[in-house]
Amino acid sequence: MKAMTLEQIAAFLREHDRYLILMHKSPDGDAVGSGYALCMALRNMGKQADTLCGDPIPSIYSYFTDKVPNEGFEPECIISVDLATASLLSGRALEYQDRVDLCIDHHASNTGYAKMGYVDGTISSCAEIIKYLFDTMDIPVTRDMANAIFTGMCTDTGCFKYSSVSPETHRTAADLMEKGAESAFICHLMFDSKSRSKILLEKLVLETLEYYGEGAIAFVMITKAMVEQSGAQESDMDGIASMPRQIEGVRIGVTMKEKEQGEFRFSVRTSDDIDASSICRHFGGGGHKAAAGCSIHTSMPEAKSEMLRVCMESLEGNL
Amino acid sequence: MKAMTLEQIAAFLREHDRYLILMHKSPDGDAVGSGYALCMALRNMGKQADTLCGDPIPSIYSYFTDKVPNEGFEPECIISVDLATASLLSGRALEYQDRVDLCIDHHASNTGYAKMGYVDGTISSCAEIIKYLFDTMDIPVTRDMANAIFTGMCTDTGCFKYSSVSPETHRTAADLMEKGAESAFICHLMFDSKSRSKILLEKLVLETLEYYGEGAIAFVMITKAMVEQSGAQESDMDGIASMPRQIEGVRIGVTMKEKEQGEFRFSVRTSDDIDASSICRHFGGGGHKAAAGCSIHTSMPEAKSEMLRVCMESLEGNL
Repeated sequence: MKAMTLEQIAAFLREHDRYLILMHKSPDGDAVGSGYALCMALRNMGKQADTLCGDPIPSIYSYFTDKVPNEGFEPECIISVDLATASLLSGRALEYQDRVDLCIDHHASNTGYAKMGYVDGTISSCAEIIKYLFDTMDIPVTRDMANAIFTGMCTDTGCFKYSSVSPETHRTAADLMEKGAESAFICHLMFDSKSRSKILLEKLVLETLEYYGEGAIAFVMITKAMVEQSGAQESDMDGIASMPRQIEGVRIGVTMKEKEQGEFRFSVRTSDDIDASSICRHFGGGGHKAAAGCSIHTSMPEAKSEMLRVCMESLEGNL
Repeated sequence: MKAMTLEQIAAFLREHDRYLILMHKSPDGDAVGSGYALCMALRNMGKQADTLCGDPIPSIYSYFTDKVPNEGFEPECIISVDLATASLLSGRALEYQDRVDLCIDHHASNTGYAKMGYVDGTISSCAEIIKYLFDTMDIPVTRDMANAIFTGMCTDTGCFKYSSVSPETHRTAADLMEKGAESAFICHLMFDSKSRSKILLEKLVLETLEYYGEGAIAFVMITKAMVEQSGAQESDMDGIASMPRQIEGVRIGVTMKEKEQGEFRFSVRTSDDIDASSICRHFGGGGHKAAAGCSIHTSMPEAKSEMLRVCMESLEGNL
């Protein structure tokens, strides 16, 4: 992959036409915000541009995605945003996996699958890079574009909480607000609103909270009965996996979720030097150092005690 | 109360000495951050300055409060920060309630109890005003001062989520980060970590959740027994008041807290056009449009039904 400057990307975008912008599967706010903001900008430049994601775009982003219906055309250039590896494409987007011309991303782990790329792993969101690209190109940022970029920035930073946030992140947020970004509406929608089902599920999950290893392990469970009782959707379970790890003194947070036919899906979140991915690899899973997952196929008590045993080994430095 | 400009406050602070800075009871991040930042600034100017709060300062703020032990002296000037009304003083601070010289606040409902005041209800935190004052005075902001101000700003805005956040709020946050504010550490501590007591209290509170007004009102309760059972501290209760309002469809979130001897303290959070402060004013309380508080002295069922009746009136536009 040829490393590009923002100026070189600007020249490339001015030169060509008929852009298709790819987003990863299970698209999050940063993928959708980056993709749609770039699509709007290209159209405002008089270019043809469409977005493509193999999975449905969650309706929570409709306040800006609704403004950018796809047009449908034979693309000349393929661009990916927020896509660390081509294997994160899905569905119809897969047909472009070997022919991405330009990749704009903020994952240090980017695999370099594209012909040209701008990857900066120090920037908190891909949307923030998109904004710097627009600044470089002197592209006017409309309210819808500002909303899209702001969405990507706030969702990938836990609402400006993470260590990836720089002073420039806050200044960019300020600039977007002045361009019309409805920051309070977006933040409320992304972080401060819960369905009644979700809040009921949270209550049920909290009732299962247990501590092990002198409080270093926090364990919660989501059973099928709890999902049924609460009426929770898959999206309602977002965030629950991060809850046990937030508790003071907890170094390993484990969420055990009952799936079909004797499968139990585990989400493991760790802090300090504890490696979540090595815990999950033990059961054939994997992930990042601080966040990983795996499945165990056995009875509920067996799955739970197996996982806790491996977590204890990890705590004791024996993994 | 004589309205002052920041320039006039600057002149006043330069002119006098031996400042005592008052903070409201149940001090939150904005009160503590504003008070301690101002105290540090005055000391750096060569003045004597102490802080005074009738209630203990929660230990969660120790990363900056530990740097500013009180000196103890006979004060010449009394300053209040983030204090909407003198009735929010407690303990030893009460002895100064009638002799506050200067009030710096961001509550539009400020009662004007001081001789001189700077009150701007459009600014998201008192700490943000303190930062503007330092800018006006050209006071160098140290890392500890930056941490204190950042704490006030992020806690009073739900981590930059509320509609009170302006572009200038974000720019101030950027500036504070450049002055050394440990934003990720502070945000994690304030928003992403919970004591075991807090998580137990949350579980108990969720068990009291009830809906009224066809789901437009969500009501939760914190009894003395729940506080005792969970071992929760005052600071563990931060954030609980905002929970009921986060539920989809809820326009009024009410948290009722049992205090001593038949007092029930209510926190009311609203959205849309519902005015929380008018609901609370009905019971002699007050606050902001979206967040207000009051006390009712009666039996538990009576206090609850009185509050719910007024909330229903507000929903129906009859308040």
